[in-house]
Amino acid sequence: MSQPIVIALDAMGGDKAPEIVVLGARLALERDSQLQFLLFGDEEKLKALMPEAELSEAFKIIHAPEVISADLKGASALRQGKDSSMRMALDAVAEKKASAVVSAGNTGALMVLARFILKTLPGVDRPAIASLFPTQRGECVMLDLGANLECTTDNLVQFATMGSLFARRMFDITTPTVGLLNVGVEDQKGHEAIRDAAAQLRSLSFSGKFIGFVEGNDIPAGMVDVVVTDGFTGNIALKMAEGMGRMMTVFLRKTFAASWVAMLGYLLARGAFARLKRRLDPRRYNGGVFLGLQGVCVKSHGGTDHEGFANAIEVAASLVRGNLTASIAEEMALISALPAPAVAGA
Amino acid sequence: MSQPIVIALDAMGGDKAPEIVVLGARLALERDSQLQFLLFGDEEKLKALMPEAELSEAFKIIHAPEVISADLKGASALRQGKDSSMRMALDAVAEKKASAVVSAGNTGALMVLARFILKTLPGVDRPAIASLFPTQRGECVMLDLGANLECTTDNLVQFATMGSLFARRMFDITTPTVGLLNVGVEDQKGHEAIRDAAAQLRSLSFSGKFIGFVEGNDIPAGMVDVVVTDGFTGNIALKMAEGMGRMMTVFLRKTFAASWVAMLGYLLARGAFARLKRRLDPRRYNGGVFLGLQGVCVKSHGGTDHEGFANAIEVAASLVRGNLTASIAEEMALISALPAPAVAGA
Repeated sequence: MSQPIVIALDAMGGDKAPEIVVLGARLALERDSQLQFLLFGDEEKLKALMPEAELSEAFKIIHAPEVISADLKGASALRQGKDSSMRMALDAVAEKKASAVVSAGNTGALMVLARFILKTLPGVDRPAIASLFPTQRGECVMLDLGANLECTTDNLVQFATMGSLFARRMFDITTPTVGLLNVGVEDQKGHEAIRDAAAQLRSLSFSGKFIGFVEGNDIPAGMVDVVVTDGFTGNIALKMAEGMGRMMTVFLRKTFAASWVAMLGYLLARGAFARLKRRLDPRRYNGGVFLGLQGVCVKSHGGTDHEGFANAIEVAASLVRGNLTASIAEEMALISALPAPAVAGA
Repeated sequence: MSQPIVIALDAMGGDKAPEIVVLGARLALERDSQLQFLLFGDEEKLKALMPEAELSEAFKIIHAPEVISADLKGASALRQGKDSSMRMALDAVAEKKASAVVSAGNTGALMVLARFILKTLPGVDRPAIASLFPTQRGECVMLDLGANLECTTDNLVQFATMGSLFARRMFDITTPTVGLLNVGVEDQKGHEAIRDAAAQLRSLSFSGKFIGFVEGNDIPAGMVDVVVTDGFTGNIALKMAEGMGRMMTVFLRKTFAASWVAMLGYLLARGAFARLKRRLDPRRYNGGVFLGLQGVCVKSHGGTDHEGFANAIEVAASLVRGNLTASIAEEMALISALPAPAVAGA
């Protein structure tokens, strides 16, 4: 039998913890029997949620007396909360007791603690947050989504290679296409850091195929498998898309509620709508992956339900299986070994 | 009878010029008999599109032998094309022969020429491009959409005041709400320039009411009347939204095409859908306004049809009627007269 994949869970992170964490892990285990979980959190609360019989091989509770609150500043997370569920879950990965960590807790604190405890991979200046995004043609990877507000040329080049390796694992394709987000596709468009990154990516041999600049509308159009941008722009573009989705849903609801005939129309098309809803279900796209660390760390949306949390666990498991950390380390070593132009910062 | 509003049209700008320019102007005139047009472009081509009788008071053709191509760099526009339709139309505004200019031509060239010929208003460091955007609650103004990739604190503060005056005219409200686009709503989020701009706007008395930071999803939610951001982020957010709209349209089409029953559902709801389509029609949101210049300058989308072009003309006319240029000049004088903190750059 194949090796189990052990995942450390911050059982106390998120709006509906620990309930959705336990339910999510249970669901993920139903789908993937190779998984095993270390649940870090309030022992009493966790035991109340799980029948004794369940605490077998697949689930193990480890008491963590503290919880990192949603409003704690990232920097304060380092000083306080040494015995927090988040920190202890990260420690388990650092100590090789688990292969990945999943948390729905405070994003800023998770990033600070993950960098401190797991450390960045050699050759990676700054880790990035990446996530999947639905497109007309399927899905794409977008990064950075908020870890780095301002990015140098090196950061962007590293994001491109890490994002490409992530896409390779998730989409099972050999050479993902990569685009740099910009305000136009011509060479002279955008900031200096972006133009320099484009020049480097054009000559760099890496896991992806750099196709040049892409614009905002090219993301949902599915123009590339990997969209690279700084964390400020990425965060705003992602949230803008979420807001557009919500606006369209409200408008569609009003459209169908406009008359009895329209409502009847909806009832007839409802099966097809249910499929569309599943396709665009935010829970499917739950799981922001911190790329560039010595270990797999996945951030679940704080407000997700157990299905969303199970999806975040699934993402973590497939990155462990796909050996993402090792392939990023390998590609980073190749890139850093290149002569000067590749390390010219901005 | 009230004064006519004379609008200078770059009749040769855009993918389908001069046809859609002439048709658009005709449509705008039908809706607003106070308008008069100066059409700058190829006299022969324009005459062929207009019956002799039409060339009365409302339309006047002025021959412009040159056209600024879509791929000309902004800077080159200054050196070449002194007799271009775009430049001659701008000259007409500078010489007070027209109150506004509308062009569907090259955006970069139009911005460079407009700044050179019309000049920026005293107190305005950089003009910005603003446009209307549909929201759940109605519409909002968003700026900058691409004129300034990097913005200082002063730029953002000026955009906030200009955007607020624009919203006042367009939405007919006294005190528009204004938000700064950021990656979170807490005070310490974002770049230094944004944080400093927020601090200034909180203490500044201007035409709008500053409510603080807003996130990407707050734009379509209609959280504020005016969304202020740098041109890089604004351009990408706007295009991302356009792309999302297109993706949703494709998905809806597929949803209804999924079965005969779903198709029947669409047929029943089709009246309501037609209303939704009109509500989100990109032609309704055509017209990027260059704010901060000594004159009204509106950029139409290059690929629009005559209805979209007529809307851009309408926007120009309402800004002339609302005396936008004078109110911006007035507010800028007030703001620049403030003591030091208001001019601390980033």
